[in-house]
Amino acid sequence: MQQEFASKLLEGAVTELSRLPGIGRKTALRLALHILRMDEGMGVALGESIINMRRGIRYCSVCHNISETEVCPICGDGRRDRATVCVVESVKDVMSFENTGQYAGLYHVLGGVISPMDGVGPDRLEIDSLVERVAAGDIREVILALSATMEGETTNFYLFRRLAEFSDVRITQLARGVSVGNEIEYTDEITLGRSLLNRTLFSDSIRR
Amino acid sequence: MQQEFASKLLEGAVTELSRLPGIGRKTALRLALHILRMDEGMGVALGESIINMRRGIRYCSVCHNISETEVCPICGDGRRDRATVCVVESVKDVMSFENTGQYAGLYHVLGGVISPMDGVGPDRLEIDSLVERVAAGDIREVILALSATMEGETTNFYLFRRLAEFSDVRITQLARGVSVGNEIEYTDEITLGRSLLNRTLFSDSIRR
Repeated sequence: MQQEFASKLLEGAVTELSRLPGIGRKTALRLALHILRMDEGMGVALGESIINMRRGIRYCSVCHNISETEVCPICGDGRRDRATVCVVESVKDVMSFENTGQYAGLYHVLGGVISPMDGVGPDRLEIDSLVERVAAGDIREVILALSATMEGETTNFYLFRRLAEFSDVRITQLARGVSVGNEIEYTDEITLGRSLLNRTLFSDSIRR
Repeated sequence: MQQEFASKLLEGAVTELSRLPGIGRKTALRLALHILRMDEGMGVALGESIINMRRGIRYCSVCHNISETEVCPICGDGRRDRATVCVVESVKDVMSFENTGQYAGLYHVLGGVISPMDGVGPDRLEIDSLVERVAAGDIREVILALSATMEGETTNFYLFRRLAEFSDVRITQLARGVSVGNEIEYTDEITLGRSLLNRTLFSDSIRR
């Protein structure tokens, strides 16, 4: 049922908030009424932070990560290993890998994975620009860091074929294995099989 | 874990969004990244609608419902029955009653119910202002429309005592009974008992 609103301003905010993912009109109304109960300065700060973010952030022209500048701080950082590119699905994945503290190379944000069911073909992703980056010649390794799903594997395979012409570039992918913290009992057989095939020297894990 | 953000603007928006109820930092990040993927105009419109709402909406000086004017449209509507006041907990409840299309009187928004467990005493609610409205003399009926919970009933009882001095004002409360659409099998005994005690003439329900 469409609700009658006492105020056009409230209705406007509810309509806009309900465009967000996972937020229906009922939740949007609850959020709007909460914002009304907040300190006025805080309510205005929320709105301004959204406007400033939307106006101020664009996509890095090299790796397509979000950036406040033409080239993002990662691509612009001279101390990073410019010969290694980690291919990820989304901006969020860049943050996840940065948070590991284990990676000092560059990134390339595809913007998703190939998914014919959702109408996402290779042309909808930043694949041509990846091939161009590799063709430029400075890259020695491309790490495929996509989800271990059907769509991710399909995309991995497609990228592998597109990059096959660069025979001196190593194409690697993330290790498949038992997630840290998981019990063997609850780990699926395919993962267990891969974790056996790709077993590593125990002494290596001690050294790290 | 505190996440590292590539952008201060993104971090700012995530911080502000995560102040909303039920929205943690992970959800806030998901929302912010969604806003970044939206059309720029739509993203800015979201922020502006929040600012406009927060700046433009205040509380009606009579009934404490939200309003864009000193006195809300309901209190200012000369066609409404000014002798009846429906006491509700929140702005949302006003909308619910308006949506029934069954009520033509005025409202009084308490701002909650008495709840010692949550530190909400009578002085934290708009009770004095309700007593003042009734004392002014034009009101003939006060409908207590609070939740049928322990706190709601406590507040009903408190209001009843505070308004007892106005012996010519009827104090009524919402009917308790079986919810429309509910099966008897799943209706609790207290509700069933009240619905028996307060049974109504079947012929009345046909006429409506």
